[in-house]
Amino acid sequence: MGIRIGIFGYGNLGRGVESAIMQNEDMELAAIFTRRDPASIVPRTEGALVLSADRVLEMKNDIDVMVLCGGSATDLPEQTPMLAAHFNVVDSFDTHARIPEHFANVDRAAKAAKKVAVISVGWDPGMFSLNRLMASAILPEGEEYTFWGKGVSQGHSDAIRRIEGVLDARQYTVPVESALEAVRAGKAPTLTAREKHTRECFVVAKEGADLALIEKTIKEMPNYFADYNTTVTFITKEELARDHAGIPHGGRVIRSGRTGVNKENGHVIEYSLKLDSNPEFTASVLVAYARAAYRLCAERQKGCRTVLDVPPSYISAMAPAELRKTLL
Amino acid sequence: MGIRIGIFGYGNLGRGVESAIMQNEDMELAAIFTRRDPASIVPRTEGALVLSADRVLEMKNDIDVMVLCGGSATDLPEQTPMLAAHFNVVDSFDTHARIPEHFANVDRAAKAAKKVAVISVGWDPGMFSLNRLMASAILPEGEEYTFWGKGVSQGHSDAIRRIEGVLDARQYTVPVESALEAVRAGKAPTLTAREKHTRECFVVAKEGADLALIEKTIKEMPNYFADYNTTVTFITKEELARDHAGIPHGGRVIRSGRTGVNKENGHVIEYSLKLDSNPEFTASVLVAYARAAYRLCAERQKGCRTVLDVPPSYISAMAPAELRKTLL
Repeated sequence: MGIRIGIFGYGNLGRGVESAIMQNEDMELAAIFTRRDPASIVPRTEGALVLSADRVLEMKNDIDVMVLCGGSATDLPEQTPMLAAHFNVVDSFDTHARIPEHFANVDRAAKAAKKVAVISVGWDPGMFSLNRLMASAILPEGEEYTFWGKGVSQGHSDAIRRIEGVLDARQYTVPVESALEAVRAGKAPTLTAREKHTRECFVVAKEGADLALIEKTIKEMPNYFADYNTTVTFITKEELARDHAGIPHGGRVIRSGRTGVNKENGHVIEYSLKLDSNPEFTASVLVAYARAAYRLCAERQKGCRTVLDVPPSYISAMAPAELRKTLL
Repeated sequence: MGIRIGIFGYGNLGRGVESAIMQNEDMELAAIFTRRDPASIVPRTEGALVLSADRVLEMKNDIDVMVLCGGSATDLPEQTPMLAAHFNVVDSFDTHARIPEHFANVDRAAKAAKKVAVISVGWDPGMFSLNRLMASAILPEGEEYTFWGKGVSQGHSDAIRRIEGVLDARQYTVPVESALEAVRAGKAPTLTAREKHTRECFVVAKEGADLALIEKTIKEMPNYFADYNTTVTFITKEELARDHAGIPHGGRVIRSGRTGVNKENGHVIEYSLKLDSNPEFTASVLVAYARAAYRLCAERQKGCRTVLDVPPSYISAMAPAELRKTLL
């Protein structure tokens, strides 16, 4: 029997977790929990159990690790501590500013229940954070940059959709190539938001909507667009469906630093991701850390962890001796 | 008082460790150990203690972590177990095939002494291994590639120097750009050694040497050059000193994989290094893991570890709560 995984929330991320489980032979899907009517869910795993979210405690003894697939705004701040009181859990909480508070809440619940929780798992926070940490520890005298994209920002797409006259929208965050090149060359430039990324918006407007007003509203929207060079392209609903159906994303963390008694040598560390499906990749990271949560709990550890705390070998299906032999 | 670091061996790597210690405020140089006459050593750290290697045990209580800076062929297999019986140690043992054996020897010594050893620290093995592990755990269905260079291979340079008629030489390993592009595009190509890297040799010949014979001998040398497209350029001693004095290196680990129920989405993870000084970068990694060894020992852990086992936060000078707040 493999590690029994529960999926809590069955949107894009939950479906990604389901397909990631299929790729890992040491895991099996125990149940999917949903706030919708379970009968309305058609899981992709044959014979998968789909239950109403309010029945989750009935499965307390049948699930080794619960992977939470809700949103960071309202779902996870409540669900992760609640479920950590009964299960080992993994979540992808990504509101950077609220991580310390979320960590404290989850840690309290998990410690009391002698369970392990791993929060903020994914690629940013997640793999990007790990690379920021390692690069800054190795090259303490240096500068660090995170670039995102090219990829779809759900938050920015949603912000456009809320504008009067907009039917649908897709926003791509695009790194500025010249900024990337300067960073890679070790020039350690000081970059404004505008100098790092541009924002490309594809908008489907309602018939008769004031296009000029929509464009102006987007470009002047504080925080989201005002600080960036933003382009707005109006397209049809059909074009959106045809050309912008995917949820690609990616980005890179680059640190340039100097070593030597007189700082005579420069070094550049770069970690980059190019992802066809943001939710499926995030789900794949969640599932790898579910394995770690399972093992940590088996060692009688308890409390909250992040990717920064988990020994890397814990996320691999291979045994430590095999890892040393084959990939060290 | 900072973490007291000993440096065992004072070549390029040892000098790199010395300058890395200067960049880390929580560390201090306790002593340099050398097999040469200590009076012949001029350390770069003012007032640094330089001792003969055979006096190392006199410093048992004055050193928190010993960083071993000898070679993998003959020094480390003997020195690391020997010193792990008395000190926490970190080494950069890089003979991949012999890692399991070295691990077992060091583990035995460190466990008996209740010390912590971290072996095979650097970038390959080291950061590259870590990235191979993480990428393969996240994308279990995929292909992985390691490319090295452009950079100086000491082993290949030495092989050329051993040829009759050669005064000095520098060999660069260069990744084949078209192979890189195919890998990055997710094409998962099958690549021979020749298709992945070319070898560029710059050779200073003795006066009157048979250049054609030297070139032939290089290009036909089994293991080192015969399986690669190799170029040989004869240059003067002055040109070698002027244009090839540095020890740059680097490379990249790339994994492409697919996710989704029907493997419909492709992803590419790439970790790359561009290093002006191979030994100084390796030294910087060693020093970061010396911090981890110190902390692990303070927790009463014991035995041998590799970068695959060490929780990432242990290599950072920042406290876990600060890491969560600032870079997660």
